[in-house]
Amino acid sequence: MHYQNPILTVDVVILTLHDGRLQVALMTRTEDPFAGRAVLPGGYVHGDPRTGHVDASTTHAALRILKQKLGFTPSHLEQVYTASGPKRDPRGWSASVVYLALHEPSAVDALIQAGAVSLHAVHPTPALPPLAFDHTELIQTALARLQAKARYSTIVAHLLPPVFRLSDLRQAYELVCGTTENKANFRRKMLAADALVATDVRIGAVGRPAEGYRLRGDLAYIEGLISGG
Amino acid sequence: MHYQNPILTVDVVILTLHDGRLQVALMTRTEDPFAGRAVLPGGYVHGDPRTGHVDASTTHAALRILKQKLGFTPSHLEQVYTASGPKRDPRGWSASVVYLALHEPSAVDALIQAGAVSLHAVHPTPALPPLAFDHTELIQTALARLQAKARYSTIVAHLLPPVFRLSDLRQAYELVCGTTENKANFRRKMLAADALVATDVRIGAVGRPAEGYRLRGDLAYIEGLISGG
Repeated sequence: MHYQNPILTVDVVILTLHDGRLQVALMTRTEDPFAGRAVLPGGYVHGDPRTGHVDASTTHAALRILKQKLGFTPSHLEQVYTASGPKRDPRGWSASVVYLALHEPSAVDALIQAGAVSLHAVHPTPALPPLAFDHTELIQTALARLQAKARYSTIVAHLLPPVFRLSDLRQAYELVCGTTENKANFRRKMLAADALVATDVRIGAVGRPAEGYRLRGDLAYIEGLISGG
Repeated sequence: MHYQNPILTVDVVILTLHDGRLQVALMTRTEDPFAGRAVLPGGYVHGDPRTGHVDASTTHAALRILKQKLGFTPSHLEQVYTASGPKRDPRGWSASVVYLALHEPSAVDALIQAGAVSLHAVHPTPALPPLAFDHTELIQTALARLQAKARYSTIVAHLLPPVFRLSDLRQAYELVCGTTENKANFRRKMLAADALVATDVRIGAVGRPAEGYRLRGDLAYIEGLISGG
């Protein structure tokens, strides 16, 4: 007897800084189940050659779906966890591999202009519409992952343009973590970690421009970066 | 046209302290593919009601499979990540949700006595036999997760019996992280975090017994626990 395999999908939680808040990008479902509801960008993993394309992994499936549905490739993409169970999708037992995607505001703003996504605050005050499937929970879990990693890594820099001021970076951490950081302490910890590279770019007001920095690598770990204050 | 869903399995990396080393518990595959090879305990997620049992989630599938194959329920089980792709299983495109399981040595030792598993060192010097599928990689990823979490949490206590001495706990961290910790510093950080509860139990040699501690909760976070020395 041949048993039916569970449904395997990927869903991507795109987080971005917009209007001074951390926001998630949502699409609108056009088909049942949940037609008309807000939904994370996502879709089926293609493993069957008859689909015309076989994904190399769930990560490749996430990148393919973002490209197909939004024409968008995030600067940072990481797997968060896999949600699963018999009830989360009315079509059958399903598992969804959830990804966190981070990108500078400009590209996400372009998606809003094009009407492809709408943004909804997740922090500090969540303002989410009713979502399809268990997507509210997937967003909360991805947000918790970002906040946990923000405490000891440079992950938050992926929410900024490639070159940024240290003050921009500190403010981004404050928005993500909900803390107020000491300017001198943040600067000292961040520079001591050797995770940033100073550039020739000067950013800001005429007469008082600040140094522009970029990330040295994709992710650096820094102990005690965030004060928790 | 109905496409075939990918194969969905779970695999469990059971790590335990044995003979002064961190070791992984492996079974022997009895069926093709890879019959005769060492393999992680794992199996299909049951989502089709015709299998006679529908798992509530991949976590429930992992617990069911450990119970069925080994009669064993670990004291700590956490999802690590999902490995996937068209080539990792010759039967077809597959995704495996990988779990890390930790338990005190006694129960794992009983499984060895019963011939259900064999233990193989993963740290400090790995000594793994050729494994089925991509299981060598799954073990390395689960080990990296344990080592990363060990640096800032009480996770390592799950490798000890429910009541342990602070010296046992420090030695367990040293074995997992490959570091040498300062006794006084480790004691101070661990007790300051309020993650342990002193018990009435005294452990050790007559005339010089040491206080027995147990974990207060499943997991506590402690900044800068491990010296990195």
